[in-house]
Amino acid sequence: MLENKDQKTTSIASLGEFGLIEHLTKHFKINQESTLKSIGDDAAVLDFKDKKVIVSTDLLIEGVHFDLSYMPLKHLGYKAIVANVSDICAMNAVPTQVTVSVAVSNRFPLEAMEELFAGITLAANAYNVDVIGGDTTSSQKGLIISITAIGEANLDEIAYRSGAAQTDLLVVSGDLGAAYMGLQVLEREKQVFQVNPNNQPILDDYTYLIERQLKPEARNDVKELLEKLEIKPTAMIDISDGLSSEVMHICKQNKLGCNLYEEKIPVDPQLINVCEEFNVDITTIALNGGEDYELLFTIKMEDFEKIKHNPNFTIIGHMVAESEGMHLVTRANTKIELKARGWNSLMEE
Amino acid sequence: MLENKDQKTTSIASLGEFGLIEHLTKHFKINQESTLKSIGDDAAVLDFKDKKVIVSTDLLIEGVHFDLSYMPLKHLGYKAIVANVSDICAMNAVPTQVTVSVAVSNRFPLEAMEELFAGITLAANAYNVDVIGGDTTSSQKGLIISITAIGEANLDEIAYRSGAAQTDLLVVSGDLGAAYMGLQVLEREKQVFQVNPNNQPILDDYTYLIERQLKPEARNDVKELLEKLEIKPTAMIDISDGLSSEVMHICKQNKLGCNLYEEKIPVDPQLINVCEEFNVDITTIALNGGEDYELLFTIKMEDFEKIKHNPNFTIIGHMVAESEGMHLVTRANTKIELKARGWNSLMEE
Repeated sequence: MLENKDQKTTSIASLGEFGLIEHLTKHFKINQESTLKSIGDDAAVLDFKDKKVIVSTDLLIEGVHFDLSYMPLKHLGYKAIVANVSDICAMNAVPTQVTVSVAVSNRFPLEAMEELFAGITLAANAYNVDVIGGDTTSSQKGLIISITAIGEANLDEIAYRSGAAQTDLLVVSGDLGAAYMGLQVLEREKQVFQVNPNNQPILDDYTYLIERQLKPEARNDVKELLEKLEIKPTAMIDISDGLSSEVMHICKQNKLGCNLYEEKIPVDPQLINVCEEFNVDITTIALNGGEDYELLFTIKMEDFEKIKHNPNFTIIGHMVAESEGMHLVTRANTKIELKARGWNSLMEE
Repeated sequence: MLENKDQKTTSIASLGEFGLIEHLTKHFKINQESTLKSIGDDAAVLDFKDKKVIVSTDLLIEGVHFDLSYMPLKHLGYKAIVANVSDICAMNAVPTQVTVSVAVSNRFPLEAMEELFAGITLAANAYNVDVIGGDTTSSQKGLIISITAIGEANLDEIAYRSGAAQTDLLVVSGDLGAAYMGLQVLEREKQVFQVNPNNQPILDDYTYLIERQLKPEARNDVKELLEKLEIKPTAMIDISDGLSSEVMHICKQNKLGCNLYEEKIPVDPQLINVCEEFNVDITTIALNGGEDYELLFTIKMEDFEKIKHNPNFTIIGHMVAESEGMHLVTRANTKIELKARGWNSLMEE
């Protein structure tokens, strides 16, 4: 996971801007039928025929969105693509292309950019998206990544944040909170390392959590899984800021309330152990930890039978009238009002 | 042009991320029929029917691409949109949507962001493009702007950088070099201001040059102008890095050479005066000055009669075999090999 610090480095300036772009983009393959013209002109040309076009964009700043002291550049490249692909998946659409712009300060050698683009290439191949354009420039400070993801869908497939009705069921893919606790483990190891650089971390008990943080995956399988179940999601959003925040988005967009059941929230056994070790409440982490990139969606109540035993999905609650409010129903069967706490501040209490 | 430093300012943090996005995007109007869903979901949804989709992206970094000491934020917002719209125009396509992501350090108050977005809104309205998405975040240093522009065209309308044939004519819209000399005037005034802040600059002799630098326009009229002339460009590129560099791109993409005629290169009378004042060669500036956002294109020789007296266009040369090389034919009728010098270094000799 760590970079080899002994290798010889090459300055980016030695290639020039056009040389750098050519060097970094030569491994990109074109797989999508809709990509007519990719990198190398003023713009790319795409053909979606009778499909609708889905567009989402993200800006990632070193020191704000990522910390290179525990995020290897290859993982960062992978995760940057995943985060944007996830937004397309959250529309119940198929990701097809991305553009990738990168700005770096002169402290980054060419080899660092190669690592970053190796991660981008890996993710592009894993998610079958074509890298069709971008921009490479210098920054005054740190690394900046801007990604625009493009996808396609038939109009009747698209799931917005709106579209949910009262009595719809709230469903989530995968499990929650692991990416956030992975970050806590990595931050603790960073502090240990700063005190004693010879201390080799033993991370065997945290592999799942660390992988969820460093190499998350977007749920581009959910669209097909739901199609096979013959379920059309009525509303959908991806979980990047934490379950609580996203559930509240769905409620507000639909002018509805909800009951969310604490005992139903899916968590991994490793999360339970690590929350005990860190002495933090599992439900708080699962509700508010971000970067899981799972999908949260609503389905009609009559679809309950189709989905109830599916291992990919968990029914975690249901929508109610707006006047009833947004609540978490605890294991002790008390109702607590839902709050979006923002995962940056979870560990500070 | 200068900002009022006395006004009260509001911190961005006081609005929160979602509040900020809502505040800054509330003036955006949707004009394009192809925009089905804009800001407010995980992604935007577009419908281009049987048109092809054109995508281009750019990353602009304070201190690298712009200097806020003479570039007011409103102008910067306008110019950022123009530069990207220009890339769509350079495909002979119609710009339809943009996404705008912005990162700012905490030295920027809300009012600064309002100015930036006022310029973005002005340009979006002027070019009839919908702002359909984006991202707003904090940066560790300075202002960062990332824009993705989207356009549409019929397949047979699209002009690539490739497509030119030997004997095709080289044509350019508008005039060249003015934006670069506008920047030189502004940099000189900045130095004067630093020596004596009470010195009020008199810029009457430079208005055209300064406007070309601070409020350039993309040539979204060229597509229609050429249609009326019944001319299909065989290859096209926008002039952002300087005429010389762009002509060389066209030559290399088409494995051709060219003859470019010095006496034909269109320049504004104001440029001639200012080049004399600064004691720099007009042709050097017109060939290598960047950021004009004019369009360079090739047409078939038989279209000469259709375009020769058109005030919007100037025929500046023609393509030749690759083996003949890329040359500037001077007023003294000598041939000089074309070089792309990069406009950043023009004034350093």
